[in-house]
Order: sequence, then structure tokens, then C-alpha cells
Amino acid sequence: MTTLSDHREQRPTTAPSSAEPRIDVAVLEQALLGRWADIRREARTFLADPRLHRVEGQTMAEHRETVLEQLRILATEGDVLRAFPKALGGADDHGGSLARFEEVITADPSLQIKAGVQWGLFASAILHLGTAEHHEKFLPGAMSVEVPGAFAMTETGHGSDVASIGTTATYDVLAEEFVIHTPFRAAWKDYLGNAALHGTAAVVFAQVITRGVNHGVHALYVPLRDPETGEFLPGIGGEDDGLKGGLNGIDNGRLHFDQVRVPRTNLLDRYGSVAPDGTYTSPIASPGRRFFTMLGTLVQGRVSLNGAAVNASKLALVVAVTYANERRQFAGGAVNDEVLLLDYAEHQRRLLPRLAQTYAAAFAHEQLLKSFDAVFSGASDTDEDRQDLETIAAALKSTSTWHALDTLQTAREACGGAGFLTENRLVSLRADMDVYVTFEGDNTVLLQLVAKRLLGDYAKEFKDVDAGGVARYVAERAASAALHRTPLLRVVQTLADGGNVRRSAGQLRETETQRELLTDRVETMVAEVAQLLRPATKAPREKAAEIFNTHQHALIECARAHADLLLWEAFTAGLDKITDPGTRQVLTWLRDLHGLSVVERNLAWYLINGRLSAGRARTVTSYIDRLLTRLRPHAQDLVDAFGYTPAHVRAEVATGAEAARQEEARTYYRRQRASGDAPIPEKSATRS
Amino acid sequence: MTTLSDHREQRPTTAPSSAEPRIDVAVLEQALLGRWADIRREARTFLADPRLHRVEGQTMAEHRETVLEQLRILATEGDVLRAFPKALGGADDHGGSLARFEEVITADPSLQIKAGVQWGLFASAILHLGTAEHHEKFLPGAMSVEVPGAFAMTETGHGSDVASIGTTATYDVLAEEFVIHTPFRAAWKDYLGNAALHGTAAVVFAQVITRGVNHGVHALYVPLRDPETGEFLPGIGGEDDGLKGGLNGIDNGRLHFDQVRVPRTNLLDRYGSVAPDGTYTSPIASPGRRFFTMLGTLVQGRVSLNGAAVNASKLALVVAVTYANERRQFAGGAVNDEVLLLDYAEHQRRLLPRLAQTYAAAFAHEQLLKSFDAVFSGASDTDEDRQDLETIAAALKSTSTWHALDTLQTAREACGGAGFLTENRLVSLRADMDVYVTFEGDNTVLLQLVAKRLLGDYAKEFKDVDAGGVARYVAERAASAALHRTPLLRVVQTLADGGNVRRSAGQLRETETQRELLTDRVETMVAEVAQLLRPATKAPREKAAEIFNTHQHALIECARAHADLLLWEAFTAGLDKITDPGTRQVLTWLRDLHGLSVVERNLAWYLINGRLSAGRARTVTSYIDRLLTRLRPHAQDLVDAFGYTPAHVRAEVATGAEAARQEEARTYYRRQRASGDAPIPEKSATRS
Repeated sequence: MTTLSDHREQRPTTAPSSAEPRIDVAVLEQALLGRWADIRREARTFLADPRLHRVEGQTMAEHRETVLEQLRILATEGDVLRAFPKALGGADDHGGSLARFEEVITADPSLQIKAGVQWGLFASAILHLGTAEHHEKFLPGAMSVEVPGAFAMTETGHGSDVASIGTTATYDVLAEEFVIHTPFRAAWKDYLGNAALHGTAAVVFAQVITRGVNHGVHALYVPLRDPETGEFLPGIGGEDDGLKGGLNGIDNGRLHFDQVRVPRTNLLDRYGSVAPDGTYTSPIASPGRRFFTMLGTLVQGRVSLNGAAVNASKLALVVAVTYANERRQFAGGAVNDEVLLLDYAEHQRRLLPRLAQTYAAAFAHEQLLKSFDAVFSGASDTDEDRQDLETIAAALKSTSTWHALDTLQTAREACGGAGFLTENRLVSLRADMDVYVTFEGDNTVLLQLVAKRLLGDYAKEFKDVDAGGVARYVAERAASAALHRTPLLRVVQTLADGGNVRRSAGQLRETETQRELLTDRVETMVAEVAQLLRPATKAPREKAAEIFNTHQHALIECARAHADLLLWEAFTAGLDKITDPGTRQVLTWLRDLHGLSVVERNLAWYLINGRLSAGRARTVTSYIDRLLTRLRPHAQDLVDAFGYTPAHVRAEVATGAEAARQEEARTYYRRQRASGDAPIPEKSATRS
Repeated sequence: MTTLSDHREQRPTTAPSSAEPRIDVAVLEQALLGRWADIRREARTFLADPRLHRVEGQTMAEHRETVLEQLRILATEGDVLRAFPKALGGADDHGGSLARFEEVITADPSLQIKAGVQWGLFASAILHLGTAEHHEKFLPGAMSVEVPGAFAMTETGHGSDVASIGTTATYDVLAEEFVIHTPFRAAWKDYLGNAALHGTAAVVFAQVITRGVNHGVHALYVPLRDPETGEFLPGIGGEDDGLKGGLNGIDNGRLHFDQVRVPRTNLLDRYGSVAPDGTYTSPIASPGRRFFTMLGTLVQGRVSLNGAAVNASKLALVVAVTYANERRQFAGGAVNDEVLLLDYAEHQRRLLPRLAQTYAAAFAHEQLLKSFDAVFSGASDTDEDRQDLETIAAALKSTSTWHALDTLQTAREACGGAGFLTENRLVSLRADMDVYVTFEGDNTVLLQLVAKRLLGDYAKEFKDVDAGGVARYVAERAASAALHRTPLLRVVQTLADGGNVRRSAGQLRETETQRELLTDRVETMVAEVAQLLRPATKAPREKAAEIFNTHQHALIECARAHADLLLWEAFTAGLDKITDPGTRQVLTWLRDLHGLSVVERNLAWYLINGRLSAGRARTVTSYIDRLLTRLRPHAQDLVDAFGYTPAHVRAEVATGAEAARQEEARTYYRRQRASGDAPIPEKSATRS
């Protein structure tokens, strides 16, 4: 295991000696690794193993087989059972388990997601939705990958709207069996990893019907294929989803069930149970609350996707910043050499604010993971904790997955044609990450959940009502809340008042000013939307839905503003823990860059609402320019502190090859000049 | 050939009968097809042939061979020689030729680019840079694809900065040969289509050196491989660029030359010639002007990429809008059915402004193509015409290629998980289009060219100087220009003054108001940057470059603002030609949506600079919301008018399958209810 001092030796600061202050790269790396630093380090060492790496250029069929083999390596060597109870061979370590999984993305995102399907969804559903009997019977195979399993929730006809799925599990009291059935094409299960090829069982979500009553969506354990022959069992059929935009190491597919029978005891019945005589009982009386409790474990997926997306952004920036610190293009004003890409102001504008947001997202993820750990370990598991966790996971997952796509694309463009070559990793990573923005909860849908929570209290009666009901509810709650807003505008208003540019910039870099600017925006927007939704309170159902829809965009903007604030607060909290003065100074600039970039992106809002004067608004942009200049010498340190080695980055363009080529060219021209053989440029020739 | 009335029958309006006004889809389709409507229609009919379509799931090697075969089909059946002189079997039809090529993207972008490499670059360089002798000797093979050819300009060490390439062609007076040589690794030619595998010859760009003088970059015809064996000729070597993020039907690769000899007469010497005795002569005295004249033919590539990118955006929107008009999700306020995706306000916000910009880009492309045709046909070919063409092509190519990526991604997300499946086309198209933003001129570099043109007169002395010189020049020119700005702010200032919201929205939809808002922004920004660059006038070289770099971002923003104006003006001009009142009304809303979306995107600028008051700024957003509602019933008509058939779209998700699945599910539930067998929801059961 590497120690802190090893790292210090491996990663000296690359800032020029003239740059003061300087980052202590080892200190910063340790801060980023966070609470689960040892687990992350160990995972990275393990994942440096080429057996686990994406083999580019494989066909879909080959890639799927490779990933299945890699999954088995993970099962035997990868310490993948940390989240499971000690009694079952696990470590009851929820946060540490996800920290490990998130790192798998450096090997191959397909492997990360295949592992997520197997342990995070399939086995995890057995664990969380089943009881001791199910654990005993089904978990060993799921945990060891002896039984590759699918998580059969989504249907062709219903993605994010799980409550409306069409598959039924009807209880047959005589046979004491459930009959699983997909009554029409739209009810086929779809997009399921392990469904096209490898899955021999599935956790199937279906409307459980007994004694003529539909008790809503529950999960059942259903064998799919003969493990020997790989053939579907009777009544089960499916289709391959075929080639996708990325993640082709996963065999996504469709499943359908024609009156397929499973024993009564295959219902994973922790939250809803059917007795032999068909009587339904549940520890949770409200069907809506029961539904959301069962879906609650899904938050795990969103938390780990958030971490994986942040790691993908880190990789993108390691590649692009390293290259931009080597590649030179156009002579500019330099006398004997071309200009480094990263010395161009526009290149800094493209990369550094994204680097700042990646830092913010990394610190925010660490907080999210701690909350997740507290809830899932039971250390802090109230209803409110769970609701907070779900809201924050939804806000962060949507922000970080879009950010990853944006950062990967910007990084690829910043590397020019080289960025488009698969050998430089960025295009494949982007292709794989693409679906992260719509799976495990479509980002747009997730942001609406966040907005609803912001607008009211994410209470029970709220959860299982449709938009019409939500509009009425939200309007009722928030209309009154708006009257009680605390007066947060003091600092901001001071800012809008007189004063010169230098003082203005000085204020912008104050933590409290940034906090006020970001907080005030969320609160004001929420209050405004609440007012707009007010007429829905007394409106009939359809009219209320119409009012709600009219303000859907504003609602989503509220959620985005909230996510901006979450990220900024997390960055600030992370910063507060850093004591090394040089590191702290540079990171403060980076945090300021992040905060002011958010303000700049929403500058029109601050102007329209009188929070910033026109003069101050200009200062925001010019101060960002100053921060870019200050941060530029530290860019390499900032990406080095992510702690990835060439075994994780694996991008030809970030290996130093470019600098070596330039040195070779420089030497050639130098020798030519020295030898006197250099051809004279036509211009000089004609002049003479 | 289909007639207009056929189209009218094929494409009836889909707007509900309650929607007034209504689009005449056939009229609109005809307007979009533009001057080269017949050629486009014929090309589309030809390209509906499955032999020419992308076969998804092929390995890179298979895809490359498929595309080569398809290229040969194009050569024999595809009327690909329109741009060549009649004397050589062409049609002297420059605009029509590109109109055809742009449509090839619906078959496979790899085929479009492979065709572009063969005829648009390789053969075209022989045509434009060579003389009659070269045409006779080299063109037949290039035109028939008997000689697949590479266009060897870019080097690993130099992409957009062609003037700095390292490959040399040194004249050996005794042998009367040029010696082609790549003196170091960075001078290897790179990213060249046809270089990895198929190319048996290349047009190689090199620094031509004779009698000890470097006369700058010229092109030479160089045989590469033995056409029988496919082996490199002596002294020539190369590498395969391997897998890429897209366009894997093209065999991009690297080439290097070790003292490779070609006859003196292989220099394509229209603009610069070396006599047997080594004397260099050129019809263009200035080396800088000569260089830009030779590179001038490259504009053809940018024009056709612009058209192809616009077509890719059209395809994306056909898929996403068609699906959003079928797919239902979440019940909302609807009583017995779920809500169509396109009825969600946020979905409209995601798709319709992009549809508006695609229309703007389509009209702008039509204008660009006409200018291109005028210049290349010689009808209107002054220096200024060429400079205008280059500037507008640079502005539009960068805008439309980024727009295509953004639109494809948004469309893919708007289709959810289905959008990620290759069978729905969007992910592959996006992967292929990715490199369009950095090849044929990196978009960021192109925008700087536009900005430089905006700032001064794109004059000779300007072209071959480095950033330091440019900064001085620009500052000199523009500082004085700023003093003479015409007072364009009248309408805009009126707008900033009092008045109620309705009148404000009324003003915003006036053509002149939008024009003033967009024009004023470009002019003001250019004048401001000029002022900022003023200190560079008297500064030493390095300092001047530093000042220039400091304002690089502002410069690029000027170019973007200019592109916004170009698109809006083109849309407005296109609109003016439409006489059908219904079509004209809907298209006016769409143009307004485009114009106001641009204003909204830059709202902070309008506020900071006092062009819009806070109240008016709010009106911009609320008027956009109103326009979205008005346009929603016409969305399908607007994408149908692009005129593509299922043979071009080829996306499972846009075939009506979704609507059929929903009808099946609806019938199932209806029958179940009628039979009395429907299970009772638990909620209702407990209540009773």
C-alpha cells in the first residue's frame, strides 16, 4: 500500500518556481480521496490490472464475453461484497463498497455497470426486498455470479414511471404460485443488463394481484434460463437490444413472460407478503409509501453513478490538461516557439471552469456517499434522512452526469483530431457515459423530483399522486411558505450598491457573498414558482395539471439552481478542511472560479432581479478572467491530484509523446540552422 | 421524379383541425429544398437505396470495405462529377454538386466524408491547384476512383496551422525531381482518409524548397502504393490511425516520406512553378496571399460540411419530434391516458428552439451555397467575394456543426433509453458528426478568423502575420472605425423605455426589433473589443500578443454573435419568399422563436448594456413560452417538411411502432374493464 510520502514523491508540484502559492499535491490528493481513501487506493491498484481493462475494437459479442470474464475476476478477487451483511460474507460497509465500484469506471464503464447490475441491483434487490429465507436461497448464487441476474423493472412502455408497468404477477391460490405475465408488447421488460445473454435469473417487478386486488408493484425472483444450455425456460422469451451508443460490454435485452409460474415464496416479501390463502399483508399500510420504500434502494445506483461520472470527468481533464500543457500551436507572440495550448485564454476558459466544477462535484459526492453510508448502515436512517438522501442524489446525479458528458466532449475537442482517436480514450468514455443521463432515473425527471421536494415537504401524500394533484399540493404548501422567507438579501444588496471595481471583485471573492448570491437565487426562484402555481390550488384536476406544466421549465430551473448551491457548499466545506496554506489558496481561487462561473451563467437572473448592477455584472466576468490567469500555472497539479496513474488514464496523447515529438522537431531545426543548410524563407530572400 | 402534388399527397398537415393557421407542408418542403431542389430530390431517391446505407455492427475493417464499395457505386451511378469541367466529363455545376454530397449523410456520414476526400479534396486539389497537363494525367483516375487518393495536408504536429508544416519538397536540379521528406515524427501526415489502406496516391502538401529558398507550402502529386499489391512504394511508410469515435468507414492514417522522389512536373503548379533549372515563379507575388489562395479551395469542404451538419440536425429532429408525438408517459392531468411527451413544456423547450435554429441554419446554408456557386462558377468571383465566402463559411460551419452535436444529443436524450439504441440512429450519427467540429478547420480557430475579419478588413498584410501582428493591425483599424459607428440603437432604446408587457411582446415580434437587437450586439461588441485591443497598437510584439490573448474569448464571442445574426437574417430572407399565408404565419413564429432564443441566451449582455430593461427581459422569456405553445401543433409538419422518408430516417422509434404498442395496451385494459375482470387497485379496495 502506498503511503502519503510515496505520493508526495510521485507527484511533485509542476507549477513553475515563480508561482506562489503552490499546491502540495499529496495533501490535495489525500483530501480528494476522502473518508474511503484506503479503499479507493486499493481499488485503483487492483484496477490497474490489464485483465480488467477495456479492449478497444472488440465486436459487441467479444466485448460482452470479456466483461463477463472480468466480472468473474471481480467476484473472486475484487472485494465486491463489502455492502453485504457480515453474516453473508460481506463487510456491512455501504460507503466503502460504492467507493470501490465508482473506481471501476477507469477499467471499463461496461464493467462498472455490469457489476452494478449484478451486485447493486440484482443481488441488492434480493437483500433489501427479500427476507432471511430469500437471502439463504438466492443470495449465494447472485453474490458469486454463479447466477448472473437481471433487474427486470423497466418496460418498453414505461421507463421512469415504474408505477405504471404492465407486467402482472397474479396469485393462484390452488397452486400456491404466482403467474407472471406480460399482457402486451409495451409491457415487455426492456434495456435490462444480463437479459440478452447471460442472465439465468431475474428480479422481476410486476403488479401483484391476489384475490382480485392489485397491490401494486412488487419484486419476484424468477429463473430465466437453463444454466446448462442457456435456453429460456418455458413461457419466457426475449430479444437482444443489440448495439448501443456505448456500454456494449453489457448484454441489454428484453424479456417477456407468458403465464410463467413461480412458487409463492419467490415473492421478495419484506414489504408485502401473500399468505398461502391469498391474503395480502404489508408492514406499510399506504400503497404509495410502500412503493417508494421498495424503490428506495435504487438510490444506491444513483449515488454510485454520481461517483462514476465525477471520475469520468476527472479522467477527461487529466487527458486534456496534460496535453494542453505539452501541445503547442501557432506562433503567437513567442519569438522562437509556438504557444502552449493552455496558455491561450480561450483554452483556459474551456477547461478550467470545468475543472473547478469537477472539484465541486467530487467534494459533493464525498458528502453524498457519507449520507448514503449513514442511511444504509442505519446510523442515521430516519424518513427525513432517506428523503434528503434521495433528493440530493437526484440533484447530484443529474448534474454530474451531464457535466461528465460536457467535460468529456470539451476535452475531446480540446485535443483536436487526436481527441477523436479511440487510443486517446475520450470518445469511448463519452459514448459509454451517454446513457448515464437517462438511466437510473432520467435526469429531467429527477430534477422535477428535486423541485417538488424544494417546493414543499416531500411528504407521503405527495408521492403517489399525479401532476394535477402535485400542482394543487405544491401550491398550497409553498404559497404560505413564500410569506415567511427570511431576509437573505443583505450582503447581496450591499453588492448592488455603489463602490469601485476593485472593491466589487473583492466582495465577489468573499465566501459569504457567493453563498448569498447562490442561496438567494434558489429561495427566490422557489418562492416565485410557488406563487405562479398558486392558481392550481383551487383549479380542477386538468386545469391544475396545465398550470403545473406551464411552469415545468421554471421548476426544473429551481432544481438546477439548488444543485449549483449544493456543489458550491460542498466545495466550500471541502476547502475548509485543508490547512496547507498554498493548497488552500489555490483551491480557494478554484472555488471562486466555480462560484462565479455559476453566477456568470445565470447573470441575466441576477440583473433582472436587481441582485447585481450592470457594473458588478461586468466585474464577475473580468474577475473570472483574473482567476483563470492565476490558476493556469496550477492546472497540472490540480489534475495530478486526482491521483490517477498512466494505468488508469491510458491515453496516448497524455503520455509525454507530444512533448518528445516537439523536442525532436526543435532539435532538427536548431541543427539545420547551426549547419547553415536551412533554406531561406522566400520573404527574406526577395528582400535581400 | 416526384412532383409537387405527389408531395402534397404524401405529406398532409398533421396539425389538428382546430389549429389555425396551418402549414402547407409541400410548399414548405419546396422552399427548404431551395434552388437545387431537383438535384436534392434525385439524390434522395438515389440514396434511399439500401446498398448505400450504413450497416450497423460491422467491424472497422468490414465498414471500411463497405464504404469503399459504396464509393465505387457513387462513382458509377451517383452523378458525382458535377463540379468538374464539362470538358472533363463534369457539369460545371458547383452548387449542385455540393447539394448532392450533403445529402449523402443520410446514407452514412462515412460515405459522405470518403466521397469528400476523393472528389472534394484529392481530385479537387488536382483540378484547382494543377494545370491542364495534371488534369489530363491525374484526374481520370481520381474521378473514377481507379486511384483512391489521400489529401496529405495535416501533420501530427500541425493541424489548423498549415503554414508551419514540416514536410519538405526539395528540388534536385540534376535529376529534375522533387525530394519529399518528413524530417521528424511531428511532420508525419496524419488523420488522412484513404491513407491507412485504400490510397494509391496522394496530394502531398510540403514546403517547396529550390535553390536554397523555401517558397512555402505547395501541393504535389505523389504515388503511394502499388495498386496491384497494396504495398507502399519505396521510401513511403505509414500507420493506421485505428479506431475512432465515429466515421470508422474511413481508413484514416499517417504517412511519412523518406527522401521520396517525384518528377518535377508532379508539382501542382498553377500558383507556383519550378522550372527545370530550379527557378521559382508564381503569378502571385506575395507568399502569404499565394498560400491563402491555394488554401482557398478548402472552403468547399466547409460549405459541404455545413450542409451535411444541417441535414444531420434535421434527421435528429425528425426522429425526436415524431417519437415525442407518439410516446406517452405519466398521467399528468389527463383522465384516461398518459401525456404525449411533446405536450410537456420542458420537452417543447428542449426540441422546438433547436428546430427553429435548424430552420435558420438551413436557410443560411442555402445562401452560402449560392455564394459558393457564384464564386466557383466565376459568376461573381472578386477577392472580396472569396473573402466573404470564406468568412461566412467559417462562421456557419462552426455554428452548424456544434448545433448538430447539440441537437443529436438532445434528440437522443428526448428519446430516453430508446435513443441510446443503435437501431434508432441518433447515437451513430452523433458519433460520426463529432469530428466535424474540429476537422476542416477547428471551430474555435475558425471563429477567430471570423472575428479578425469582423474587426478589420481581411486584407493581405493581415493574413500571414502572427497574433502579435494581428493585434497591432486590428487595433489600428478598428479603433478608428469605432468612432464612426452609425446610431443603430433607436428601436432598441424605444424598447427599453416604458410601455406595458403586451406592447413589449408586440415589439419583440417585430422583424426590425429583432434585427436591431442582433445587429447592435455584433457592432457594439466589435467596437468594444477594438477599444480593448487599442493598447496593442504601440506595444512590442510579445506584449501585443498578450493583449490579444487576453481578449481572445471576447473576440470569439463577437464571431458567435455575428453567426447568430447571419442565421437570423437568412431565416428572415427565407421567410420573405413564402407567400402561403398559413405557412408564413407559422414560420414567422418559428423565426421569432429563433431570434428571441438568441436574445434570451445573451440576455445578460442586453441588460448590462442597457439595451433591455429588466421588465422587457422577462417578456423575452414569457414570449418564448407563448411561441412554444403556438408552435407545438405544427411541430410534426415542420419536421415532415424536411422531406425525408423512412428510407432516409431508418429509426425504429419513429416508425409508428410506439403508437401501435400503446393502442394494443389501451385495448387490453379496455377489454379487461369491459369484462369485469380488472383487478381493483388496493386503494379503492381498502376504501370499500
